[in-house]
Amino acid sequence: MRILFLGDVIGRSGRKAVRHHLPSMVERWKLDFVVVNGENSAGGFGITEKIFQELLDAGADCITTGNHAFDQKEALVFAERQERFLRPINYPPQTPGRGANIYTARSGARVLVINVMGQLFMTALDDPIAAVEREIAAMPLGRDCDAIIVDFHAEATSEKQVMAAFLDGRASLVVGTHTHVPTADYRIQPGGTAMMTDIGMCGDYDSIIGMQKDEPLHRAVTKISSGRLGPAMEEATLSGIAVDVDDTTGLAKKVAAVRLGPHLERSVPTFWTDED
Amino acid sequence: MRILFLGDVIGRSGRKAVRHHLPSMVERWKLDFVVVNGENSAGGFGITEKIFQELLDAGADCITTGNHAFDQKEALVFAERQERFLRPINYPPQTPGRGANIYTARSGARVLVINVMGQLFMTALDDPIAAVEREIAAMPLGRDCDAIIVDFHAEATSEKQVMAAFLDGRASLVVGTHTHVPTADYRIQPGGTAMMTDIGMCGDYDSIIGMQKDEPLHRAVTKISSGRLGPAMEEATLSGIAVDVDDTTGLAKKVAAVRLGPHLERSVPTFWTDED
Amino acid sequence: MRILFLGDVIGRSGRKAVRHHLPSMVERWKLDFVVVNGENSAGGFGITEKIFQELLDAGADCITTGNHAFDQKEALVFAERQERFLRPINYPPQTPGRGANIYTARSGARVLVINVMGQLFMTALDDPIAAVEREIAAMPLGRDCDAIIVDFHAEATSEKQVMAAFLDGRASLVVGTHTHVPTADYRIQPGGTAMMTDIGMCGDYDSIIGMQKDEPLHRAVTKISSGRLGPAMEEATLSGIAVDVDDTTGLAKKVAAVRLGPHLERSVPTFWTDED
Amino acid sequence: MRILFLGDVIGRSGRKAVRHHLPSMVERWKLDFVVVNGENSAGGFGITEKIFQELLDAGADCITTGNHAFDQKEALVFAERQERFLRPINYPPQTPGRGANIYTARSGARVLVINVMGQLFMTALDDPIAAVEREIAAMPLGRDCDAIIVDFHAEATSEKQVMAAFLDGRASLVVGTHTHVPTADYRIQPGGTAMMTDIGMCGDYDSIIGMQKDEPLHRAVTKISSGRLGPAMEEATLSGIAVDVDDTTGLAKKVAAVRLGPHLERSVPTFWTDED
Ligand SMILES: [Fe+2]
Ligand SMILES: [Fe+2]
Ligand SMILES: [Fe+2]
Ligand SMILES: [Fe+2]
Ligand SMILES: [Fe+2]
Ligand SMILES: [Fe+2]
Ligand SMILES: [Fe+2]
Ligand SMILES: [Fe+2]
Repeated sequence: MRILFLGDVIGRSGRKAVRHHLPSMVERWKLDFVVVNGENSAGGFGITEKIFQELLDAGADCITTGNHAFDQKEALVFAERQERFLRPINYPPQTPGRGANIYTARSGARVLVINVMGQLFMTALDDPIAAVEREIAAMPLGRDCDAIIVDFHAEATSEKQVMAAFLDGRASLVVGTHTHVPTADYRIQPGGTAMMTDIGMCGDYDSIIGMQKDEPLHRAVTKISSGRLGPAMEEATLSGIAVDVDDTTGLAKKVAAVRLGPHLERSVPTFWTDED
Repeated sequence: MRILFLGDVIGRSGRKAVRHHLPSMVERWKLDFVVVNGENSAGGFGITEKIFQELLDAGADCITTGNHAFDQKEALVFAERQERFLRPINYPPQTPGRGANIYTARSGARVLVINVMGQLFMTALDDPIAAVEREIAAMPLGRDCDAIIVDFHAEATSEKQVMAAFLDGRASLVVGTHTHVPTADYRIQPGGTAMMTDIGMCGDYDSIIGMQKDEPLHRAVTKISSGRLGPAMEEATLSGIAVDVDDTTGLAKKVAAVRLGPHLERSVPTFWTDED
Repeated sequence: MRILFLGDVIGRSGRKAVRHHLPSMVERWKLDFVVVNGENSAGGFGITEKIFQELLDAGADCITTGNHAFDQKEALVFAERQERFLRPINYPPQTPGRGANIYTARSGARVLVINVMGQLFMTALDDPIAAVEREIAAMPLGRDCDAIIVDFHAEATSEKQVMAAFLDGRASLVVGTHTHVPTADYRIQPGGTAMMTDIGMCGDYDSIIGMQKDEPLHRAVTKISSGRLGPAMEEATLSGIAVDVDDTTGLAKKVAAVRLGPHLERSVPTFWTDED
Repeated sequence: MRILFLGDVIGRSGRKAVRHHLPSMVERWKLDFVVVNGENSAGGFGITEKIFQELLDAGADCITTGNHAFDQKEALVFAERQERFLRPINYPPQTPGRGANIYTARSGARVLVINVMGQLFMTALDDPIAAVEREIAAMPLGRDCDAIIVDFHAEATSEKQVMAAFLDGRASLVVGTHTHVPTADYRIQPGGTAMMTDIGMCGDYDSIIGMQKDEPLHRAVTKISSGRLGPAMEEATLSGIAVDVDDTTGLAKKVAAVRLGPHLERSVPTFWTDED
């Protein structure tokens, strides 16, 4: 099974890049399942239902989020009716929407996606480790589903590496999101679970984590806020990860970073196009 | 001028990899100047004078550190007499040692190295922006030195990107250290300053940020500490950045990630060996 | 019903003051139920079973804790067998011991005590609001118990005031612990629940939150740790709160701060001795 | 010399209480010098020049602030021309306004007031210890001034107690502000410097740190913001500290908490009215 996961889409520029590249990636790489983190897709803060739909139309099968999930208040409403929308599972139980769901991939395989948030250096939700454990125990890989994908939306590299190690052998792919910078450490762990500490953003990298540089620079120099943050508007680079999952075990066979666009070193999976 | 910067060396395994690879890198790439962050080189916590010397012997011209600078108490002593040792410049003024120094590269060029620590999600020192500004204003690139290298030891990707943007056009290279995970975003900014949000570690990547996995996993699951952290002991991967600096302007001409060893996708500069 | 709650007991000095004062307080004020936070009673870090027993012998009916609950590893063992020992309820489910329990007061009344930890500026556990809600919903005041006491071990005044407001009308008493400084804001909220943002410590107040001043001062000046923290050893002051609870409603009728010993302005409940 | 320091004034309700009580306090207690923290006086966020003037008119000789100093952008302008306005001294050097200033008390005595911000659990500024040290070294008590008052605007009780201990014997009074809850630990330290970990707020105490309860409660339960915070509007309680300073040494002779209004136990200095 061929899985693509793209990191936090930042505003208009990020959406444009997704619309432009994703459809051909789906086709060219014969992708079975695509996840996109959409928490910053509406002007950098949250996501609207229209944008959610736009990302699905571009080829996403599931939209994950994070601490910005509900910045746009309409997400509190459409989270309920849109089964392909996920918000972190460790929000309080009464929170609208779902934190995990099972989907049917193009191949017919059953894919469990879990979205969960970290506790370190962030507004804390419930224990992410326990939350993921519950989901995976209830629906183990190879028995109740054919692939498990975890989006761990967290700040600290240590916390994200712990989650990946914790799930090694029991999930197909564990990625970090939230820092908006791709790490260069994608790999298959000893137990067979692919991981990447952070898959970066789909946004304009000539920026401060996707935002225009002026205000963050002003704040850093003066320690005083002088206005709002807005998304950087130049051409976005897609960033994410591509994983080839074993149809029998649900574990990762091959993994590659995906970086497509200006500023970053280009990276695309070669194992799929080579096989063509 | 050819500069190499290697990220935090973690314990025995990291030191071994540096000793093994660095001498031949210096020779093969005809390196003019090498910086190594050594804050975790003594069992994961701090650095001794013996290890400091060992890293110099392997080819380093300057050892930077960070929040672990003084974990080994002898560093409070040798910091004073070892001019190639740096600790973050924004420690209180009476702190032993230096936070910045100027060195003579193999080429004869004058290289200013500044080590500075972030304030976000860390024990805070003085304003890093102001500290670096003071140094660079006193010794501007192209007038008083031929290259400026900044090691910004910080947790948050946003804070590190702000520093890089702040210095764009006035430094040769700004790297982040501390998260122990290399980012995949090395680039030359519009003003000519090379940057990489974090250059990662020289350590065993089958680990939690260089440490053995058991205890961090135990803490994450139980929220209770059950012992000390120790460095992972298997083969380390070197991680860092290589920059070719213009001899006239002191700005970056070419930049590449350096990743050498197991677990991570291999990366070495091709611009130097191509020129051979 | 007459309830006394004493804040974090700090080391030998704190224990001595408890042993010295508590028995006569129990007798003189005809206390029905006494809670003592014991998380720092063993040299400032955690609690041993021997000390736990010593605090019970002095008159405590229940010992609560906090982030230091398991600093002494034997607490992981005796937490299971000692029903009067509580650790924060929002630790992971498999954690040894209890986070809430119901006790019989001297008056025969049923007292539910809940120990819970905050998430702000601390190592985060599960959502404290939801954890307390579950307990109180399962055993509501006036139906399943005659008094409810909550020890919210937390750093931020805002988080503690939110908990008190959240429980107003459904608990007898909500106190904060952890900052080791008593606040001067004990009061009965509009719904009838007594609160005090932090009840302080039973320790030597000529100190830094109960610890000897030298090392914290050294760290503040140098930003470098130079040794371990140890509890201050001079005479301790008891600090806590006294509440008179309505036998019918379980809500608070009268409340007073308790401060007994050097350094702090003396305060004792007058409503009980007046009634003698 | 008779000094009064009132904690953070919160919005309209806080200002009203200051206007109502302060003039008669000045007269009745024959106050020589009054400091008021005004960082939340404009709707809970910052301070305007009009409100600044209003607080002076009510009897304040100096207005200190904190992390909210510049929430109202006009403060960036009037900070420069208003010598009785202080913002934390450890803001970057180019920040408008002053962080310390010397004033003439009604008695003719020279009073140095220093406003400084903490680094723990807050957006970090420069080292507060070093900043205060510089001021006090330049203008020592008993030589260049007759009283020194420090407003340490900080979150953590430990950091505030360290500052008080650090200055013991070299300042007249060190108070904490920022948590909006008065502590019950005012005292004269061994060296003669009066301290109080936090002097609380002048605001409506039936609130969450001065703000209306609904939104903080909603956020705590749902972990989702649903609107803005607004100051609580019912009758405010004044909270602060009164210190009698020795005219010769500049050290504290007597100290008392000041709490005047609903919800909190009333406290006023008795040493001044007794002397009448
Ligand atoms: Fe994001
Ligand atoms: Fe995020
Ligand atoms: Fe490090
Ligand atoms: Fe570090
Ligand atoms: Fe404590
Ligand atoms: Fe605690
Ligand atoms: Fe305030
Ligand atoms: Fe504040």
